[in-house]
Amino acid sequence: MKVLVVLAHPNKLSFNHAIARTAAATLVNNGHDVVLHDLYEEKFDALLPTSEILKDSEIPPSIAQYCAQLSDADGIIVVHPNWWGQPPAIMKGWVDRVFRPGIAYEFEEGDKGEGSPIGLLRARSAIVINTSNTPEERELAIFGDPLAAIWERCIFDLCGIKNIHRTMFRVLVTSTPEKRHNWLEEVQQTVAKHYPPEAN
Amino acid sequence: MKVLVVLAHPNKLSFNHAIARTAAATLVNNGHDVVLHDLYEEKFDALLPTSEILKDSEIPPSIAQYCAQLSDADGIIVVHPNWWGQPPAIMKGWVDRVFRPGIAYEFEEGDKGEGSPIGLLRARSAIVINTSNTPEERELAIFGDPLAAIWERCIFDLCGIKNIHRTMFRVLVTSTPEKRHNWLEEVQQTVAKHYPPEAN
Repeated sequence: MKVLVVLAHPNKLSFNHAIARTAAATLVNNGHDVVLHDLYEEKFDALLPTSEILKDSEIPPSIAQYCAQLSDADGIIVVHPNWWGQPPAIMKGWVDRVFRPGIAYEFEEGDKGEGSPIGLLRARSAIVINTSNTPEERELAIFGDPLAAIWERCIFDLCGIKNIHRTMFRVLVTSTPEKRHNWLEEVQQTVAKHYPPEAN
Repeated sequence: MKVLVVLAHPNKLSFNHAIARTAAATLVNNGHDVVLHDLYEEKFDALLPTSEILKDSEIPPSIAQYCAQLSDADGIIVVHPNWWGQPPAIMKGWVDRVFRPGIAYEFEEGDKGEGSPIGLLRARSAIVINTSNTPEERELAIFGDPLAAIWERCIFDLCGIKNIHRTMFRVLVTSTPEKRHNWLEEVQQTVAKHYPPEAN
């Protein structure tokens, strides 16, 4: 299977990097083709310009490549910290520019864009792995976990991916090395469960 | 009063620009000091780097100025389209970089960052104006309006602003010129209500 792993964290020493590396290594060990994007490392330009908004827009080759990888993926794994109930801006920009009409979704003939779009992604599943410094009780009581709505309903379900697994590791800032080790084992297990070794 | 207006839309001919201009003009007419940021026009760099994450980080003068304006504001108005249940990446980046610890919120002494932060913004109110192409019924039934959680609970309430007014103009893509005209009148009225003329 072709699996796309997309990571957004500015610090190469971050736990988010460890998560993405663990996910990618698990996929490779299971015989899958992995494309790993470290958006900060790649200096991904997060700003959707006017010229790319319409479905038939001409888009730069770099974005076209991100789009082709998204279209081709049998699975998608996104890894990022919870910043203000949302992904970091650079990952929001990856969604804004790469989840294009005609690539990730489209409207029916005659629909000007106000109807219900049809999902175009062929990935059978997506995994969202987040880190957070907000305890679970506070997250649910005060903030309402907007990341669930964002990734599950607003993005992946809309684009046709119905099987979505989400994990939030918290509280990161006070976690022990042992706790983090266990979390990485959980990453390994989750990834292996969704993308098991290919049958020969 | 000092009111900060922040706009995120790539197209200068967009209805979002008309909203921001109307809001700013209403404020000026009412005798307020207005700072208007068109983030796309300013090519705001939306990527929070590792070097700016901690409270005591040295930050570039340009970001320090955005921070000072946020701290000084008696009122804040944000204007953006609903893209994937979230603001465009450039506005997310304005939050990531400008709503800093020590500027917008801080943790109590001894708290490593896992506790409940204290809001530091002195603005008495905030107005969030969004445009959307999703009908209200579908927004509430399918997506759950994550923008409400994001702006009201995750951002402004956390930073100490309790009086938050939010308006979502929809469906933009099929709206008539007359409808848009009425929406701009609504912008004028909402802004004037929250920021009335100063008493002499």
